[in-house]
Amino acid sequence: MITTDILIIGAGPTGLFTVFEAGLLKLKCHLIDALPQPGGQCSEIYPKKPIYDIPAYPEILAGDLTDKLLEQCKQFEPGFTLGERAETIDKQEDGSFIITTNKGTKHKAPVVAIAGGLGSFEPRKPLLENITNFEDKGVEYIIKDPELYRDKRVVIAGGGDSALDWSIFLSDVASEVTLIHRRNEFRGHLDSVEKVQELKNAGKINLITPAEVTAIIGDDKVKGIEVTKKDENPIIVETDHFIPLFGLSPKLGPIANWGLEIEKNAIKVNNALDYQTNIPGIFAIGDVNTYPGKLKLILCGFHEATLMCQAAYQIINPGKRYVLKYTTVSGIDGFDGTRKEAPKAVVKAIE
Amino acid sequence: MITTDILIIGAGPTGLFTVFEAGLLKLKCHLIDALPQPGGQCSEIYPKKPIYDIPAYPEILAGDLTDKLLEQCKQFEPGFTLGERAETIDKQEDGSFIITTNKGTKHKAPVVAIAGGLGSFEPRKPLLENITNFEDKGVEYIIKDPELYRDKRVVIAGGGDSALDWSIFLSDVASEVTLIHRRNEFRGHLDSVEKVQELKNAGKINLITPAEVTAIIGDDKVKGIEVTKKDENPIIVETDHFIPLFGLSPKLGPIANWGLEIEKNAIKVNNALDYQTNIPGIFAIGDVNTYPGKLKLILCGFHEATLMCQAAYQIINPGKRYVLKYTTVSGIDGFDGTRKEAPKAVVKAIE
Ligand SMILES: Cc1cc2nc3c(=O)[nH]c(=O)nc-3n(C[C@H](O)[C@H](O)[C@H](O)COP(=O)(O)OP(=O)(O)OC[C@H]3O[C@@H](n4cnc5c(N)ncnc54)[C@H](O)[C@@H]3O)c2cc1C
Ligand SMILES: Cc1cc2nc3c(=O)[nH]c(=O)nc-3n(C[C@H](O)[C@H](O)[C@H](O)COP(=O)(O)OP(=O)(O)OC[C@H]3O[C@@H](n4cnc5c(N)ncnc54)[C@H](O)[C@@H]3O)c2cc1C
Repeated sequence: MITTDILIIGAGPTGLFTVFEAGLLKLKCHLIDALPQPGGQCSEIYPKKPIYDIPAYPEILAGDLTDKLLEQCKQFEPGFTLGERAETIDKQEDGSFIITTNKGTKHKAPVVAIAGGLGSFEPRKPLLENITNFEDKGVEYIIKDPELYRDKRVVIAGGGDSALDWSIFLSDVASEVTLIHRRNEFRGHLDSVEKVQELKNAGKINLITPAEVTAIIGDDKVKGIEVTKKDENPIIVETDHFIPLFGLSPKLGPIANWGLEIEKNAIKVNNALDYQTNIPGIFAIGDVNTYPGKLKLILCGFHEATLMCQAAYQIINPGKRYVLKYTTVSGIDGFDGTRKEAPKAVVKAIE
Repeated sequence: MITTDILIIGAGPTGLFTVFEAGLLKLKCHLIDALPQPGGQCSEIYPKKPIYDIPAYPEILAGDLTDKLLEQCKQFEPGFTLGERAETIDKQEDGSFIITTNKGTKHKAPVVAIAGGLGSFEPRKPLLENITNFEDKGVEYIIKDPELYRDKRVVIAGGGDSALDWSIFLSDVASEVTLIHRRNEFRGHLDSVEKVQELKNAGKINLITPAEVTAIIGDDKVKGIEVTKKDENPIIVETDHFIPLFGLSPKLGPIANWGLEIEKNAIKVNNALDYQTNIPGIFAIGDVNTYPGKLKLILCGFHEATLMCQAAYQIINPGKRYVLKYTTVSGIDGFDGTRKEAPKAVVKAIE
C-alpha cells in the first residue's frame, strides 16, 4: 500500500504544480497516471508545439513546460504510479480513501485531488478480431520502455508523429523496423518525415504503404502480421512486436462512477471556495472540473491547485492555522534536504 | 481624453497580464500607475530577488518577471499613464467610466479593472517643514528620468538599495553626488554597498554619515540643504536637487472612496463568477481584491485577470458568443500586425 498526504490522479500540468504547492505546505504527494510519462495533454498530444499564454512565457514548448514543472516540484519528491489507470475508490472509516488501479496497485491518502484533465488517455486500437489476446504478448499500444525492443523485429502502424518518431528511434535499437500506413502521405513535423525518408533510403526502415494490417498471427504470442496493400493479395511479415500507434484519446472512464456530480463530462466543484467536489476530501482541479465561467486553460489549473492545497492542509492539520509565506521572503525547504533562498541583504558600513 | 476598452488601474503583474488576456479577445487596454515604471511590487520593492512559486519557473527574479510580462503583452500595444495616481471616477450615462488622475489626465472606458495591489505607491517623505513647497522644484522622491540630473549637483538621502543604486548610477551623470544617511551602515545588496565604497574612495561620491538633512534652503527652487551630523553644528551643502529615497509605501487611497465594498483594506469581489465588484463594469483583480480563501499571490492574479477578461468581453460585445481558442492551435494576432503561430505539421509522402 502506497500512502501519502495528497493522492493526485493525473500527472498533467495541474497535477505536477499541485505537488509544488502542497510541498510549500509540507504535504507529500503521489501521482497516478495512465500514461507512461508525466505531462498529460502537453506531453502526449503536443510536446513540440509552442504555447503562448503561460503567464510570463511569451512562448514555451509544451514539452519544456512539463520539464520546468517537474524541475520545480522535484524538491518535494513526488511518488509516481505511471502506466496505470485509477479504477476504484473506497472511503475508509477513518475518512481516508483507498484508490486501486487497473493493475491492482493500492494507494491510501486523506485527500484526493482529481487532476484528470479530459480523462485517462486510452489507445485507439485497430479493429482486429483477436488483438486483445496478444496485448502485452507482442502487441503494445504505448511504448513504455524502448529497451524491450532491443535486437527484436518490430512492426509499427500509423501515419502521425508518434509512428514517425518511434520508427526513427527504434531503427537504432531493434533488429528490424517495418512502418505500415494506409496512405503514402504522413502527417507530422517536416524533420520527422524527412528523417524517415532518409532511413528508408538507407534500408534501415522497411516501408509498406498504402497498406493495412489485416490480421495478427501467432499462438500465445505474436509471430507475424498479415499486411494487405490495396488491390493486392495479403502478405505475411514475420515480427516479434506489433505496435499500432493510432493515437490516444482521453476517456473520463472509471471516475465517472465514483459518485461525483458530473456535468458535461466534467466534475462539478465549488469554485467559490476550494474546488471541492460533492464528496468531502475529494477535490477536482484543472481541465477535469467545471463551474460557472470555467476555462480549460493551463494557468487556471495552477490557481485551482494552489487554493485546493490550502483546503487539504486544513483537512490534514485540523485546527492548525496557516500563515501564508512568500517564497521570496522565506525560501523553500525541499523534502530532499535542499534549500532555496534569496540572497540576504547585507548591513555594512561605508567608511 | 484617452479612450480604451479596459482601463486598468495598476501596472503590476496582474495588470500587465490582463493586457495579454484582453488582447487575445481583441480588447485594448490602457494602464495607469502611480509609479514611473511598470511591475508593481515586483519592480518597486524586490526587483533583484528571486521568486520560486511562479508556475514553471523554478526561479525568476521579480524584475525579470516584469520584463517577461511586458514582452508577452507587447503585441497588444498597451497604453500607459505612468507617475500619476487615479483619483476620481465618474460613471457616464452611456455606462462607461471616466477616470481622472491627480495630474488631471482623463481616461474613458466601458470597463475598469482595478489591479491596484496594496494600493498606490506613495513616497515616505522626510519630516521637513517646507518640503512640499519645493516638490518638483528641486525635490523629487522618485527618479523618473535620470537625464534631468545631467551635469547638475545632486544630494541623495537614504540607506537602502534605492539610495545606493541611484548614487552609483548618477555618479556618471550628475556633476556632483552627495549621499547622506543617518547611520554609517547601509542595507542592500553586497555589490551595491561595495560599489559605493569604491566610488567614495575614488572621490566620485561624497558621503556624509551619520547625518540628517535638517532644512532645505532656497526661494522658488532648491539652492542647498542643511545637514546635521550627530553632536556637530549644521553645515550647508549647495545643490540643485535633493532626492530623499526613504522607500515607497502603498496606500489604497482614493479608490477607497469610489463606493466599492471594502473589507480589510481590499475590494470585495464575486469570486464565484468573474471578480466583479458591487459596481457593474468595475472589476478588482490581484492583491487588491478579497474573497473567501483569497491568497495574495501573483499566480492567483493571473487566473483572476483571465476570467475577468471574459466578462469584459461580454460587456463590450453584448450578445456575442465567445469561443475559447487555444493559442497553440490558433496562434496570436497582435494589434501591431505581428503574428505568432506554431509551425504547421506537414502532410508529405514518403517514397
Ligand atoms: C492541441 C492542444 C493545444 C492546447 N493549447 C493550449 C494553450 O495554448 N494554452 C492552454 O492553456 N491550454 C492549451 N491546451 C489545453 C491544455 O493542454 C490543458 O488545459 C491542460 O493539459 C490541462 O491540464 P490537466 O493537468 O488539468 O489535465 P491533462 O493535461 O489532461 O492531464 C490529465 C492526466 O490525467 C490522466 N488521467 C485521467 N484519468 C485518469 C485515471 N482514471 N487514472 C490515471 N490517470 C488518469 C490522463 O492520462 C492525463 O495524463 C491545449 C490542448 C490541446 C490538446
Ligand atoms: C518582499 C515581497 C516578496 C514577495 N514574494 C512573493 C512570492 O514569492 N510569490 C508571490 O506570488 N508573491 C510574492 N509577493 C507578492 C506579490 O508581489 C504580489 O502578489 C503582486 O505584486 C501583486 O500584483 P498586483 O499586480 O495585483 O499588484 P501590485 O504589484 O501591488 O501592483 C499594483 C500597482 O497599482 C498601482 N496603484 C494602486 N492604486 C493606484 C491608483 N489609485 N493610481 C495609480 N496607480 C495605482 C500601484 O502603484 C502598483 O504599482 C511578494 C511581495 C513582497 C513585497
